[in-house]
Amino acid sequence: MTSLPVTMTAIAISAPGGPEVLQPVERPVPQPGPGEVLIRVAAAGVNRPDVLQRMGHYPPPPGASDLPGLEVAGTVVAVGPGGDPELLGQAMCALVAGGGYAEYCVAPIGSCLPVPKGFSMAEAAALPETLFTVWHNLFERAWVRDGETVLVHGGTSGIGTTAIGLCKLFDIQIIVTCGSAEKCDAARALGADLAIDYSTEDYVEAVKAFTGGKGVHAVLDMVGGDYLPRNLACLADDGRHVTIAFQRGMKVELNIAEVMLRRLTLTGSTLRARDVDFKAALADEIHRTVWPRLIEGAWKPAMDQSFPLAEAAAAHARMQAGEHVGKIVLLV
Amino acid sequence: MTSLPVTMTAIAISAPGGPEVLQPVERPVPQPGPGEVLIRVAAAGVNRPDVLQRMGHYPPPPGASDLPGLEVAGTVVAVGPGGDPELLGQAMCALVAGGGYAEYCVAPIGSCLPVPKGFSMAEAAALPETLFTVWHNLFERAWVRDGETVLVHGGTSGIGTTAIGLCKLFDIQIIVTCGSAEKCDAARALGADLAIDYSTEDYVEAVKAFTGGKGVHAVLDMVGGDYLPRNLACLADDGRHVTIAFQRGMKVELNIAEVMLRRLTLTGSTLRARDVDFKAALADEIHRTVWPRLIEGAWKPAMDQSFPLAEAAAAHARMQAGEHVGKIVLLV
Repeated sequence: MTSLPVTMTAIAISAPGGPEVLQPVERPVPQPGPGEVLIRVAAAGVNRPDVLQRMGHYPPPPGASDLPGLEVAGTVVAVGPGGDPELLGQAMCALVAGGGYAEYCVAPIGSCLPVPKGFSMAEAAALPETLFTVWHNLFERAWVRDGETVLVHGGTSGIGTTAIGLCKLFDIQIIVTCGSAEKCDAARALGADLAIDYSTEDYVEAVKAFTGGKGVHAVLDMVGGDYLPRNLACLADDGRHVTIAFQRGMKVELNIAEVMLRRLTLTGSTLRARDVDFKAALADEIHRTVWPRLIEGAWKPAMDQSFPLAEAAAAHARMQAGEHVGKIVLLV
Repeated sequence: MTSLPVTMTAIAISAPGGPEVLQPVERPVPQPGPGEVLIRVAAAGVNRPDVLQRMGHYPPPPGASDLPGLEVAGTVVAVGPGGDPELLGQAMCALVAGGGYAEYCVAPIGSCLPVPKGFSMAEAAALPETLFTVWHNLFERAWVRDGETVLVHGGTSGIGTTAIGLCKLFDIQIIVTCGSAEKCDAARALGADLAIDYSTEDYVEAVKAFTGGKGVHAVLDMVGGDYLPRNLACLADDGRHVTIAFQRGMKVELNIAEVMLRRLTLTGSTLRARDVDFKAALADEIHRTVWPRLIEGAWKPAMDQSFPLAEAAAAHARMQAGEHVGKIVLLV
């Protein structure tokens, strides 16, 4: 095995706070355990949960690295005890429970997928977190299928742009909301069938008008709060509502008679806390269904801006400013 | 075809109000349309929605009879245009969208099931409404399977006693709540694995204690209101909550973070408004899965008291008093 350095540079959260608390630190290079690999990170995706973790609102799950970063792409440089040496040298992207903002990162083998042909490391690093999240919540929890229509908030976010991409790959009509006319243009350019500027339009009325009064089959929601009853008003009978975040609050008012009479379903999930077996099964399904389409060039993630690892603070500042379209990535 | 009378006696709702508004009336014998049969009613089940309809809180769906009554058993005495004459003379029980409190009642063929061998007409009339409701909501909407544990409120109601019966048939552990020690005894005698007296015990604590702190896989709820957050506290991670009524109110407070972090699912349905195709598919599934067990004598509905059709008001008074255990039936 090639010799590996003992220490590495990583970005740590020095204390809960603003982007400036993200500080370069020296850390020991982590050791892969059984069923794990060590990846020399070429690029790491930046996601909203990283921002929440930095602010102190989203502690890492038990056993996970305290370093931020939920997805990476790079080269496998070590395998854990009993691991397959064939993996060494392979270009992989991986979903990780933390530790992505670093020169080296440990990942469960089951959460790794090969970097698709034609993808840069930055593009590959932009895949796992939002792709796994959108796939599981939209297709498994909301069981959306071809010919249906969905509503996704934040059309230019990582989740929004990934949802647009997946919906277009699988013949699903997608309506998104965005906070400005420019973002609506960007979402439409990416393939959204309808982009609603929530700063000037009532999205419930716009959804109703677009769907001929019927409503959508599913809503993927990261807003919560007062959006919840409005989201339900957007749903057709038998519609499904999936919560993946609650930026406007967790306490919501629900009319249970509406749920019953219209046979609505409300559910939700969060990816990070799931066990490795779940993530491996999800990765396997995505490898079978989505990867062939990526390799044939049918979709690439919308890339916003890349920053050197050392400038993670600037990357967070950009995400919080909310002006980005698509994925923000750190380059190592 | 045997000659049929032109008019019949039925029980109508003379005006919204107490049990006394249920009045015998003369009505034309209804005519079966295409896909329908006419049943000479021997027995008609009494259900909670009949009481709500009598009070003016639950108008019949478009096209349904204005007479109360959602389930009957009797003999097929006429078939609609193009119908199979083989059906004539057969003993059937049927789910109907209304009109059961009468000497004759029209039913869609798809909503009819043969009176099981060994069942009286009263017992057969007690099957469709609660059996279809519990089957669909517990097994289809909450996808409960053998080895799981469910919580059902109102353990001695028609729904509760049917849920106990079905759960015992299909190796599901069932916890019920009841309003008195006597009712808890009755529920346990019917097979409930745990019966909680909600007048003296906190059911959330009792459920947690019984399940070793884990909670149940599903809740079948007809209470709503302030029960909803307590029901969710009874659910294990990945638990399902199904609403079939909301006796304590439709406005509920929901913590969407709990739904997301614990991957809960909330849904609900009401049977009466579903189309004939849905009901036919459900009847077919129940015929394949439950009917063989009924014929072998594995379960019979818990029967409370029977009343002559003319005494429908007394039957409603009994249901509203809440002292019944199992099904109340009208005999024609």
